[in-house]
Amino acid sequence: MKNYARAFAPATVANVSCGFDVFGFALEHPGDEVELWLNDSGEVNIRAITGDGGLLPRDAGANTCSVAVQHLLHSLNIKTGVDIVLHKKLPLGSGMGSSAASAAAALVAVNHALGEPLKRNELLPFAMEAERIACGSAHADNAAPAIMGGFVLIRNKDTLDIIDIPVPEELHAVVIHPHIEIKTSDARQAMKKTLSLTDAVKQWGNTAALVAALMKSDYDLIGRSMEDVVAEPVRSLFIPGFAVIKQAALDAGALGCGISGSGPSMFAFCRGNSIAQQVSDKMLEGFASVKLQADSYVSPVNKEGARIMPS
Amino acid sequence: MKNYARAFAPATVANVSCGFDVFGFALEHPGDEVELWLNDSGEVNIRAITGDGGLLPRDAGANTCSVAVQHLLHSLNIKTGVDIVLHKKLPLGSGMGSSAASAAAALVAVNHALGEPLKRNELLPFAMEAERIACGSAHADNAAPAIMGGFVLIRNKDTLDIIDIPVPEELHAVVIHPHIEIKTSDARQAMKKTLSLTDAVKQWGNTAALVAALMKSDYDLIGRSMEDVVAEPVRSLFIPGFAVIKQAALDAGALGCGISGSGPSMFAFCRGNSIAQQVSDKMLEGFASVKLQADSYVSPVNKEGARIMPS
Repeated sequence: MKNYARAFAPATVANVSCGFDVFGFALEHPGDEVELWLNDSGEVNIRAITGDGGLLPRDAGANTCSVAVQHLLHSLNIKTGVDIVLHKKLPLGSGMGSSAASAAAALVAVNHALGEPLKRNELLPFAMEAERIACGSAHADNAAPAIMGGFVLIRNKDTLDIIDIPVPEELHAVVIHPHIEIKTSDARQAMKKTLSLTDAVKQWGNTAALVAALMKSDYDLIGRSMEDVVAEPVRSLFIPGFAVIKQAALDAGALGCGISGSGPSMFAFCRGNSIAQQVSDKMLEGFASVKLQADSYVSPVNKEGARIMPS
Repeated sequence: MKNYARAFAPATVANVSCGFDVFGFALEHPGDEVELWLNDSGEVNIRAITGDGGLLPRDAGANTCSVAVQHLLHSLNIKTGVDIVLHKKLPLGSGMGSSAASAAAALVAVNHALGEPLKRNELLPFAMEAERIACGSAHADNAAPAIMGGFVLIRNKDTLDIIDIPVPEELHAVVIHPHIEIKTSDARQAMKKTLSLTDAVKQWGNTAALVAALMKSDYDLIGRSMEDVVAEPVRSLFIPGFAVIKQAALDAGALGCGISGSGPSMFAFCRGNSIAQQVSDKMLEGFASVKLQADSYVSPVNKEGARIMPS
């Protein structure tokens, strides 16, 4: 159908233990979907949202998917109207890049409906503007992998110097979402604004090592590098049972385990799907032991990112 | 000759702009040489030092080459005596890993004379003990590349988790040593003990990116990643003309330019030998313009590290 598009954008894991604000990767599933129609109204409107339990704003100026579209249209000086339907499939406030996925799906859809005026990486600034209204900070560590896929390094978020880091074929991620909510803005607030040089050196030793480990397919080194002395010590306090569940993941064979984004979801990297399934089981048991329901997702790293769906 | 060995160990560039305390690489030349003879005295002695202008301690407990040997013998519980002659070819206090090169050459020589009881990477802890007496800190970012060669990442200096980072074939380093001395201990003292989270994020974005750039042979990204917001702003104040000389290097085609170790030497990465020679010329001119004599070294990254020499 002309002037119509439907797109999917995946859940993403930001920070990835040692890489606060610089690393993120995309999952194959789950993800949000956006349908949209161009029209002559000159206005961007949200016509419906499914799957959010009525929690997300319907005001086009307050929802990440519509804000992203508004910024794109403004930047290209296109006066079209857009009607948006958001199929929200990611849990809200989960640390799985929910706000970025909605924005990414909307941007890929509207770019397609407009005849692809922009390249994929050119969509990123609009998704970051949407992130700003979601959490007060225009960060790229969810938005970049949601749009472009893969494991990405944000070398510089001002110049948007984004580097794709190849990952080993057998690498699988487990993401466990416990049914509690942490607002990204609160989780950012809890972070200390300064750190010791000693801790900083450890952290950049690990960020550098994780890149080397992924590019060398050195699974042991992936695990050793997944050490976070900056965000995890503070943010793990928001997650009941964190230490026990992390240990259970490692005992079950995970290479490493940490917080997905700002939490409360936790993630683990594993070598191969079968170990990942075992790790998932043990992490779910861990959350059950602290009386928390949780959902589990097991996926390789998604190399493609957001994609157009058949209408 | 039995129970005799002579070894060479190269100059090294530590920190490498963004990688304070975690990156280091070795040059092909220049380097220190150590000759040594085993004997029955049960004592480690320095018999002679050439090339140091009489400045280095002759006391075996105070010179890095003999201290390293003492630690190795103690660790292996070997009661042999060792007579050492150090041929000092690296400038002292230059930021080119002079103390580490002496220790590395001595360790490779004594290990050879003893029949190679230790593997190459097992020599590192003894070189680090020698570094402790030279500058008060048992750092590995000169010692590791001096012994093992290559471009190395010290992920963790306590567990000695050292990772070899492959570098592109055309990568050449220029190191310029101006004739002023900065003590490593003073240069470390000048560093701030804390940093802002914002600066820390920039730094680990760059360390991660430099690893990716080297492994991808992405020369442009090598240059963009060579940004240091932690050490260079402080330490460059000790180097007359730093900003002008750095700009001259970049204008002459260097990928990036920074301080070698704690200075006063500066280094630049270049693509290919011919650009490196031009960069060297311009940096020498820069030091001349601030009335400083300087020596220049141009070299690819040394993949081999310290080596036994024909006797």
